[in-house]
Amino acid sequence: MGTSRRPSTGRVTIADIAERAGVSIGAVSFALNGRKGVSEETRARILRVADELGWAPSTAARSLAEAKTETFGLVLARDPHNLGVESFYMEFFAGLEVELSKRGFSLLLQVVGSTGEALETLRKWHRTRRVDGVVLTDLTSDDPRAAFAAQVGLPAVVVGDPSVSGGLTSVWTDDATSMREVVRHLAALGHRRIARVSGLGTLVHTRIRDDAFADEARALGVEAVLLSTDYTPVQGERVTREALTGRDAPTAFIYDNDVMAVAGLTVAMELGLGVPSEVSIIAWDDSVLCEHTLPKLTALSHDVVAFGAHVARRLFDVVAGADPEAFLDSSPSLVIRGSTGPIR
Amino acid sequence: MGTSRRPSTGRVTIADIAERAGVSIGAVSFALNGRKGVSEETRARILRVADELGWAPSTAARSLAEAKTETFGLVLARDPHNLGVESFYMEFFAGLEVELSKRGFSLLLQVVGSTGEALETLRKWHRTRRVDGVVLTDLTSDDPRAAFAAQVGLPAVVVGDPSVSGGLTSVWTDDATSMREVVRHLAALGHRRIARVSGLGTLVHTRIRDDAFADEARALGVEAVLLSTDYTPVQGERVTREALTGRDAPTAFIYDNDVMAVAGLTVAMELGLGVPSEVSIIAWDDSVLCEHTLPKLTALSHDVVAFGAHVARRLFDVVAGADPEAFLDSSPSLVIRGSTGPIR
Repeated sequence: MGTSRRPSTGRVTIADIAERAGVSIGAVSFALNGRKGVSEETRARILRVADELGWAPSTAARSLAEAKTETFGLVLARDPHNLGVESFYMEFFAGLEVELSKRGFSLLLQVVGSTGEALETLRKWHRTRRVDGVVLTDLTSDDPRAAFAAQVGLPAVVVGDPSVSGGLTSVWTDDATSMREVVRHLAALGHRRIARVSGLGTLVHTRIRDDAFADEARALGVEAVLLSTDYTPVQGERVTREALTGRDAPTAFIYDNDVMAVAGLTVAMELGLGVPSEVSIIAWDDSVLCEHTLPKLTALSHDVVAFGAHVARRLFDVVAGADPEAFLDSSPSLVIRGSTGPIR
Repeated sequence: MGTSRRPSTGRVTIADIAERAGVSIGAVSFALNGRKGVSEETRARILRVADELGWAPSTAARSLAEAKTETFGLVLARDPHNLGVESFYMEFFAGLEVELSKRGFSLLLQVVGSTGEALETLRKWHRTRRVDGVVLTDLTSDDPRAAFAAQVGLPAVVVGDPSVSGGLTSVWTDDATSMREVVRHLAALGHRRIARVSGLGTLVHTRIRDDAFADEARALGVEAVLLSTDYTPVQGERVTREALTGRDAPTAFIYDNDVMAVAGLTVAMELGLGVPSEVSIIAWDDSVLCEHTLPKLTALSHDVVAFGAHVARRLFDVVAGADPEAFLDSSPSLVIRGSTGPIR
């Protein structure tokens, strides 16, 4: 992050604070780290001296075992109003936090309107040394963020396909193989016209799933219907209703998240169609929600909390100097519940 | 945050950087802020000089219009694995981000295991000047965080009832009044045995809702059944099943979130009970999910994104020196959909 080039002179060190406060270096360390071992009075005096000397977090962090900012950053280019709809990001953050909290790290989060603004935020964080590393998610096909991080040497992990990681460390799930498995499962049940209700088309992983869906359907000789949405249940409901009430309605639907699958199930029920006797439904990703519908939803299950934790561990490795590598996370597995069955 | 007591001597200022780099103060400001107006070569030279002088974010921030860390902090004492289940927090974060992103602020987030650890994190953030202010949520009855923030002068906004804000600025919703409205609505429909499926009992707002529920039921002469959970649909399902299959089953259920209400609806369907002909169901808070069940769920609707944005605005005011005050956010309103009706 460029800080290693700094000379050590001119900084306020804990030795300076110890000298001025008339205490040991250990006492200063205890006081600044909030650990037991100094009285409240001494702690207060040390903090006052630290203030007087202009001691500041970055200085302190560099002095104290090169701990730097103890912060990882994540910029999200999503509409804030849609963020709460699906559970993926909250579970992913929670997974990051599992590892971060073990080491006392925090997550710096910013929600912006576009990939361009996301890049600006990364630039600013890098310039002002606000983070020790960043997690890059929701990559688009012409995403400039990985290239920026590589160029300036900002430690980063790309969450997504290695083909778009720009040579950085990536953690990815093999979405293509999972999609092929889903299509084969439905074809084996006799479905000959299968719809995929996909999420944001600008995202690389959406395109990878789209391609695998179309390709596997072609290989199996079944018809593939692609219905694009923005991940919201409102759009999931709309495209499902249009497909089910149109000519040559699909008999199976694969949804790109859980809430759209719930919306699709509701549409089928409203239209008086049996699930799975007349329409089969599959959700991707699985969530607790999928286990609390009637019937329960067949889903591609991926432990997103564990995924987030995995990403955090890799970022700690990158910060520690590990060479770039692509890590395949566990693949989503098909959990067959009550919403899929043979075609009548 | 204690920084105002610091003397201005001894800090690296942009004037120091300008002098050493042989450029104008304006050029340094442009370079450090990443704005156009300096060539890439000049920008590189300025950043190099800033590095040599030990320029660091906190120093820079204080020099540049007292912008400080441009970060608000939030510590969450919740089980990471349950965080993704309900949409409240993701929508709340999104609302904070709406206001933060307008001013280029970031949100520093840490998930911890207990209120005690949350306090430790706040201490550390304060000590290391990592945030300009904090948002305090999920307050418990003996919560030490508000007192800590007040004591050390850390700008803070309490999200919750003014009775536990410890004299700090608070933003609250009148949950008691909303709960009374819900109970009256159900009693007016003829329900005489009403269950409340409540969330974490340690939280102050859970207790406030509990009390209002019991009190209003008593006033109306209807029976109140309190069923405690941890907000997860697994527990929501379990207590609903036990209540519906036990003696003197309630005819109406008020759930403390959306996913438990969906789980409750599913239990009723599995038991062959009509909703709302035999069982009425109400969710708190409303979410898109509630509009995509069959029947759609009657819910207490609160714009959580707007709530988060409101909290962020108040925290900006506090940082700017506003006096503590209690702000009532818009009250949750009862949106009547298909899951509530008269008792048979």
